[in-house]
Amino acid sequence: MNGGAGEQVTVRTSAVEQLVDVTAEVNDALRGLGMTEGVVLLYCPHTTAALTVNESADPDVYDDISRGLSAMVPNMRFRHAEGNASAHLRAAMLGPSLLLPVQGGRLELGTWQGVFFCEFDGPRSRQLWVRPVSTVSGAG
Amino acid sequence: MNGGAGEQVTVRTSAVEQLVDVTAEVNDALRGLGMTEGVVLLYCPHTTAALTVNESADPDVYDDISRGLSAMVPNMRFRHAEGNASAHLRAAMLGPSLLLPVQGGRLELGTWQGVFFCEFDGPRSRQLWVRPVSTVSGAG
Amino acid sequence: MNGGAGEQVTVRTSAVEQLVDVTAEVNDALRGLGMTEGVVLLYCPHTTAALTVNESADPDVYDDISRGLSAMVPNMRFRHAEGNASAHLRAAMLGPSLLLPVQGGRLELGTWQGVFFCEFDGPRSRQLWVRPVSTVSGAG
Repeated sequence: MNGGAGEQVTVRTSAVEQLVDVTAEVNDALRGLGMTEGVVLLYCPHTTAALTVNESADPDVYDDISRGLSAMVPNMRFRHAEGNASAHLRAAMLGPSLLLPVQGGRLELGTWQGVFFCEFDGPRSRQLWVRPVSTVSGAG
Repeated sequence: MNGGAGEQVTVRTSAVEQLVDVTAEVNDALRGLGMTEGVVLLYCPHTTAALTVNESADPDVYDDISRGLSAMVPNMRFRHAEGNASAHLRAAMLGPSLLLPVQGGRLELGTWQGVFFCEFDGPRSRQLWVRPVSTVSGAG
Repeated sequence: MNGGAGEQVTVRTSAVEQLVDVTAEVNDALRGLGMTEGVVLLYCPHTTAALTVNESADPDVYDDISRGLSAMVPNMRFRHAEGNASAHLRAAMLGPSLLLPVQGGRLELGTWQGVFFCEFDGPRSRQLWVRPVSTVSGAG
């Protein structure tokens, strides 16, 4: 349960619902792994949090995404006794794993993209697993 | 179309909408593949079903997720003549593929996590493809 | 930012919101890479677009998915000044990466499945990165 043959990033969230830009931390982990090129798996081992990629330039964007996901939760009676079913729902929608290209020792993202840890039931201390998957093969 | 160089898990769903915990079946498939460490691809070859990861301890959680996704479907006129457009919509939202870490011959998940086959147009007999992707490389 | 050791597919979208079937273009890219078997990463480097898999046989299905996602956007005040926050929200929900099996030099999908580029803020000229991840190992 400790991220095995990879690195682990600790993310401290500070609100109930929050998208946290973790691009720099993931790049640090890639350095720790000595990984320069290929494909990396980012994995969220929690059930009320998830991962996504979106614009990192304007914090209003990821704030809008966080509030938008919250507003999408239907107004219904959930059964889960802990009262955080809507956090589980949003985590299941976004999913726990991201597979991303790596080049030159860093995540190779689109111009405006960053990686976000999506907290739906914070504030908490969370983990993000970083696992090398492969070195790219093939021409092109 | 038969899962190629991997294992295949058959999932028999018993309701129109249902999240089925398939963690044990996927671990059995890993044993069948002789895979002990690395990263595995789980793939759903259907267009009205999907895969996700969430809490497996309390069945109310995945029941809430199933009902919550259903309640999120907008009340609108769909054109698809088969009448199951909302199932396609939910399948597209959750997506067909999950990439998961493997260690010690089993899925390496968070403490509370399990893998769920998400049925949106059942009951049916469904397939889930299990494909080894890599052995983890790198230090850490 | 140019797709590194892989192929790149250009997708010209023709509407604000649109799901475009790119299965044939991805298969062409696999040929260009000389990739015959294994697992491929499809990656969308944009923040108002995403990727998914669903039924390609009936265009009404992916049209319904596009309109359904649009109808799910909550009626709320977004802060992002460019006015396209709802496109960012849908892109984050669907996610930028798909991992798909390859066999016989083509995507190995379910009978009814195709790969879709999901435009949420078009029309634009978009890119889709195609990266070989691995050759399948293991028995089965």
